[in-house]
Amino acid sequence: MYNIPTSSSRRVVIIGGGFGGLAAAKALRESGLQVVMIDSNNCHQFQPLLYQVATSGLEPTAIAFPLRSILRGRKDFHFRMAYVTGVDVERCVVMTETGELEYDYLVVAAGADTNYFGMSNIEAASMPLKSIDEALALRNRIYRSLESAQKCECVEEQERLLNFVIVGGGATGVELAGALAELRNRVLPRDFPDLDFSRMKVWLLNASDRLLEAFSEKSSEKCLTDLRAMGVDVLVEAKVSDYADGAVIYNDGQRIESANLIWASGIIANKFEGLDNTARGRRIVIDEYCRVGERVFAIGDIAINNESPLPQVAQVAIQQGRNVGRNVINMERGRALEKFVYKNKGSMATIGRNRAVAEIGRLRVSGFAAWVLWLFVHLLFILGFRNKLLVMWDWAWSYVTHDQPLRSIIEAKKRR
Amino acid sequence: MYNIPTSSSRRVVIIGGGFGGLAAAKALRESGLQVVMIDSNNCHQFQPLLYQVATSGLEPTAIAFPLRSILRGRKDFHFRMAYVTGVDVERCVVMTETGELEYDYLVVAAGADTNYFGMSNIEAASMPLKSIDEALALRNRIYRSLESAQKCECVEEQERLLNFVIVGGGATGVELAGALAELRNRVLPRDFPDLDFSRMKVWLLNASDRLLEAFSEKSSEKCLTDLRAMGVDVLVEAKVSDYADGAVIYNDGQRIESANLIWASGIIANKFEGLDNTARGRRIVIDEYCRVGERVFAIGDIAINNESPLPQVAQVAIQQGRNVGRNVINMERGRALEKFVYKNKGSMATIGRNRAVAEIGRLRVSGFAAWVLWLFVHLLFILGFRNKLLVMWDWAWSYVTHDQPLRSIIEAKKRR
Repeated sequence: MYNIPTSSSRRVVIIGGGFGGLAAAKALRESGLQVVMIDSNNCHQFQPLLYQVATSGLEPTAIAFPLRSILRGRKDFHFRMAYVTGVDVERCVVMTETGELEYDYLVVAAGADTNYFGMSNIEAASMPLKSIDEALALRNRIYRSLESAQKCECVEEQERLLNFVIVGGGATGVELAGALAELRNRVLPRDFPDLDFSRMKVWLLNASDRLLEAFSEKSSEKCLTDLRAMGVDVLVEAKVSDYADGAVIYNDGQRIESANLIWASGIIANKFEGLDNTARGRRIVIDEYCRVGERVFAIGDIAINNESPLPQVAQVAIQQGRNVGRNVINMERGRALEKFVYKNKGSMATIGRNRAVAEIGRLRVSGFAAWVLWLFVHLLFILGFRNKLLVMWDWAWSYVTHDQPLRSIIEAKKRR
Repeated sequence: MYNIPTSSSRRVVIIGGGFGGLAAAKALRESGLQVVMIDSNNCHQFQPLLYQVATSGLEPTAIAFPLRSILRGRKDFHFRMAYVTGVDVERCVVMTETGELEYDYLVVAAGADTNYFGMSNIEAASMPLKSIDEALALRNRIYRSLESAQKCECVEEQERLLNFVIVGGGATGVELAGALAELRNRVLPRDFPDLDFSRMKVWLLNASDRLLEAFSEKSSEKCLTDLRAMGVDVLVEAKVSDYADGAVIYNDGQRIESANLIWASGIIANKFEGLDNTARGRRIVIDEYCRVGERVFAIGDIAINNESPLPQVAQVAIQQGRNVGRNVINMERGRALEKFVYKNKGSMATIGRNRAVAEIGRLRVSGFAAWVLWLFVHLLFILGFRNKLLVMWDWAWSYVTHDQPLRSIIEAKKRR
């Protein structure tokens, strides 16, 4: 099925072209096996920079990289765009919306999506930030709200349009809040001279008592101080429970009137039938070799080893991908499997121009040094020479001109 | 209304931020009048290069330029994003979907959209190419069809997915056909090694007996020869009348099975109530001063002077915009009006790499020289230093690498 050329080698199917899937594919490059990658998108999306696409700092294509380009030229590597629904481990087939595909080895790296925790009003009203599509939709929403506020003569409605409420104080929420505040402080007033930007508010609501919980308390505090200095209204211990009558509801009835609810408060593994995905966050349960079954592996955001749960970040997915790739080769050659051991390379989050926090082992850096480190590491991990150049160019342009040039509202649709 | 600051000056309202509207705004820069520009988009779109966005040669933002950036810093210039429905000349108000706006002078430069000539099957099935939204939608369609063809095991369906039918042999149709053929000839086979690209067909159907009717017969012939050399299946005297059962129908019953119908066959002026728009192509009738009424002007694709009809091209809109801007100032100062006189600066169309045709006065150029001229003129007219650089960069990259790097399918929407 699926028009894959017949091959004398056994077939590895990799579901997902994110960090994990790509690392697995790379590790299988010299394996001699047939590798088929499936993804519902035709491009790898560099999720750590989605917030910059949303705040018009980066072109969407700067952080998208066609999966076919990556696989190009590798012998017996194939890409197929399809939406996978699950797996039938009895028959060794992957099930998709457009047919089935047999595998000898399977690597499930299908990732996670936004978790609304069952709150349907919030799901319907809020803007998530887990894909380039969503980042562009958020960008459009920001500029639409500003344009509407500019036209609007009712003060209450204008306030509602100028309140941007970000829920979730992890890296995504923090980075987005910082970027939005900078947009307001530096860029937008020149574009909207008739609008009073002291009335535009960027809120960051966090359920727990500190931001960036994956970081040390010192970094959390630094982040809070920096965001407040940039004019972000940070509320901690603010648990959002509903969106009703145009307002965000938190802590049993407190309200912020807002047309712009941005939800960065949690993720849930993508739906996947046929494997035990009853672990926390709908994740698939794996063993210390990232295995679910005989020749079935799951890695990255969609997987959890309950014995030693790991954070859902790119580094884990990449390292698991490499481990699984090597182990598939080990199995083919009748060698013993290597256990997966995670090496934490540290975490970093940018807060604004010249402001970031970074933690690498015992090293804690903040401010300008952390910011430069952040730029450097992100450039390093972006795929493709052309994309690196584009991102550098966009960053340099914004840094020098204090401008975000990508403020056009663009949607991929037929007009009426 | 519309939150425009009160001013001691009279107000000029310009509807549309295309070539015509911008030229008028520019001519009014030193007028001392209050200028309000309204557009349903927040950016100027450089329509001549839409086909390159559609064929993944250019970033959408490279040919979009935020209108607020253009007006930025000009005293008493204001932009409002709104969808204009018409005008009430009795009360001197512009009507929009979100309220009314008074004017002292009005410049209608609202442009034109795709004309399906009442064929609703074609309207429903086809991809137009009159805005960046539509160009992106077409780009997505191209790559989706290729991905589907790659997966598909039914030969007939695969053929249908690989037939790209462009209707309309004007500049847009010709340029798009050339770009698609080059994509097929040079770029796509590396990305889809399992697909037989001799089966991908680019059709160009033209109702009349020659392509590029605005050009000399010699240029038309050159264009036809070039396109055929590039492997475009050009059909002349092929009048498309319907799209039914997955096929394009032309000349009373001939069929091309195709999932990809691209419609570049004609334009119709945008709907506009309150003015006499009963002329050919729904255009608003203007006099030799581009006037419709006392202090109401119409310019560009939406207007026609029946005494001396002009082609619906950027040059006409730009020159009319300048004329109208000057005449508004003349009226303010009690001076005589200047008649509009069109100066034809020539036409050009690109066919492919190193291939173009250009006609300037009596000069007819084709091939490499025309192509370089085409590049130069288009770069010159793109707004903004940053956009010029971006376009140059994208062009240089494609030229040197024989690659079109922007092949990611991206849509601005919330995911399911």
